[in-house]
Amino acid sequence: MSQFDEVSVVKKANVYFDGKCVSHTVLFPNGTRKTIGVIFPSSLSFQTAAPEIMEIIGGVCRVRQAGESEWTTYQAGDSFKVPGDSRFDIETVEMLDYVCHFG
Amino acid sequence: MSQFDEVSVVKKANVYFDGKCVSHTVLFPNGTRKTIGVIFPSSLSFQTAAPEIMEIIGGVCRVRQAGESEWTTYQAGDSFKVPGDSRFDIETVEMLDYVCHFG
Repeated sequence: MSQFDEVSVVKKANVYFDGKCVSHTVLFPNGTRKTIGVIFPSSLSFQTAAPEIMEIIGGVCRVRQAGESEWTTYQAGDSFKVPGDSRFDIETVEMLDYVCHFG
Repeated sequence: MSQFDEVSVVKKANVYFDGKCVSHTVLFPNGTRKTIGVIFPSSLSFQTAAPEIMEIIGGVCRVRQAGESEWTTYQAGDSFKVPGDSRFDIETVEMLDYVCHFG
């Protein structure tokens, strides 16, 4: 599925890391929330509050979760879970499109 | 209204001008389409195919439409119309949030 249907979308973007990450928030009728966004080529460290699932829609990234020494490569069609109150390092060398699922 | 309700949203972003402009497409039940996006600080020249209305949601920009010599400043709450098959120059010195209305 290339789109979400019957949702609400917040007009104003979420911008992180000086614009290296830009997302828009999508609200679902059941009360859950996702963000759809892009990450520009960069090496970033994201903090999580709530647990989340990162789904890669386009591009490739390398990810290292808190406490791990190895990096794992993810590409379009892949997902990875991140616990709440944690962090992950992510490296991209091309534009990454993602959906971040919460709750 | 800070959000659009009962819409579809395309997961993958539209990226223009080497990432200076990033938007997501929102589809309405009546068949119309809008994009919600950001423009990073830059000086860009947009081409229009269809007529559009640019609505500024956050930030400030200066705009010069095709055939005009004067620049006009727009900020949050303002809109401007652009004819089809035309172009406009836009300058931003801070992050701009916009909604582009088509059809």
